[in-house]
Amino acid sequence: MKLLEERIRKDGVIKEGNVVKVDSFLNHQMDVELFLEMAKEFKSKFASHNINKILTIESSGIGIAAIAGLEFGVPVVFAKKSKSINIDGDMYTAEVESFTHKCKNQVIVSKKFLSADDRVLIIDDFLANGCALQGLISIVNESGGTVEGIGIAIEKGFQSGGRTIRNLGFHLESLAIIDSMDAATQNVEFRQQED
Amino acid sequence: MKLLEERIRKDGVIKEGNVVKVDSFLNHQMDVELFLEMAKEFKSKFASHNINKILTIESSGIGIAAIAGLEFGVPVVFAKKSKSINIDGDMYTAEVESFTHKCKNQVIVSKKFLSADDRVLIIDDFLANGCALQGLISIVNESGGTVEGIGIAIEKGFQSGGRTIRNLGFHLESLAIIDSMDAATQNVEFRQQED
Repeated sequence: MKLLEERIRKDGVIKEGNVVKVDSFLNHQMDVELFLEMAKEFKSKFASHNINKILTIESSGIGIAAIAGLEFGVPVVFAKKSKSINIDGDMYTAEVESFTHKCKNQVIVSKKFLSADDRVLIIDDFLANGCALQGLISIVNESGGTVEGIGIAIEKGFQSGGRTIRNLGFHLESLAIIDSMDAATQNVEFRQQED
Repeated sequence: MKLLEERIRKDGVIKEGNVVKVDSFLNHQMDVELFLEMAKEFKSKFASHNINKILTIESSGIGIAAIAGLEFGVPVVFAKKSKSINIDGDMYTAEVESFTHKCKNQVIVSKKFLSADDRVLIIDDFLANGCALQGLISIVNESGGTVEGIGIAIEKGFQSGGRTIRNLGFHLESLAIIDSMDAATQNVEFRQQED
């Protein structure tokens, strides 16, 4: 999506260690007009699926997913991260490793809000190694629902998460895929995609 | 707001200890169409203020604030909760006590995203004792910006948070104010408000 790529070039900051900071428009301050355009793009890319629920994970996926929910006209569920080991039987759970925070989290969704009837679009802001995403897929599978599609704002194409998910046969669409970036020059190379 | 009060009566679950669970439409599964109606209500209630930024706090404020951001046409910043004590100088910080989770959290906002030019509407899902809200107000004050208004979905009117904030002279609007509730009968009494 050209609009998002241009915004990353303009306002993203590349840090050492393959980190791209997009906190001025995506995951701390949120440009909700941009989110609306992203939501329309997701709607067009997943038009052939009969999505009836959106699933995301706290915190930075929630804004994008909420506005996508308006565009799709469906409810949005956000998975919660929990360190507690005492999860009662009313919850779907998955264990997710966070590389940024170097810890393991339980990810939980109440069983009331996902079931075999659900045709789910998973939405998140970033895809890198794919651990969080694998947890969300596992939760949808546990519920008996189907993962109809996965919509990501920014994929780090040089990490393995996206390739693995595509190899597994999922319909994954990332609005911008970064193939390489350079902290010294602030140059970002995006993967060519049909728009 | 009648629509929200009716929804609380229909889908809210009153638990012992003055807890009202609204996770089916507000803070786990999100009814984004309802959020849009709430955003319109906030827009009408704060029309006389020249709001140029919305501030909320992760996680359950984000969805409501993002959709309100669309309605107001302004960017939305969400404060982050952090347990780390090493906050660098680029952050506004406030300490917030959570009664639900029985712990103290640092609440942080990057200095890049709040300044003396900002006329801020603070939005959150719940107001009870008001600790989180006081932290957000403190952060706006630290930035030199002004708190133009505070928009809350559900206020627990029998706790002191709302009264304190109104006594301090802030323009606080809660879309539903619960004056009492009863786990045994599932009865909820709302404060009469002009709609």
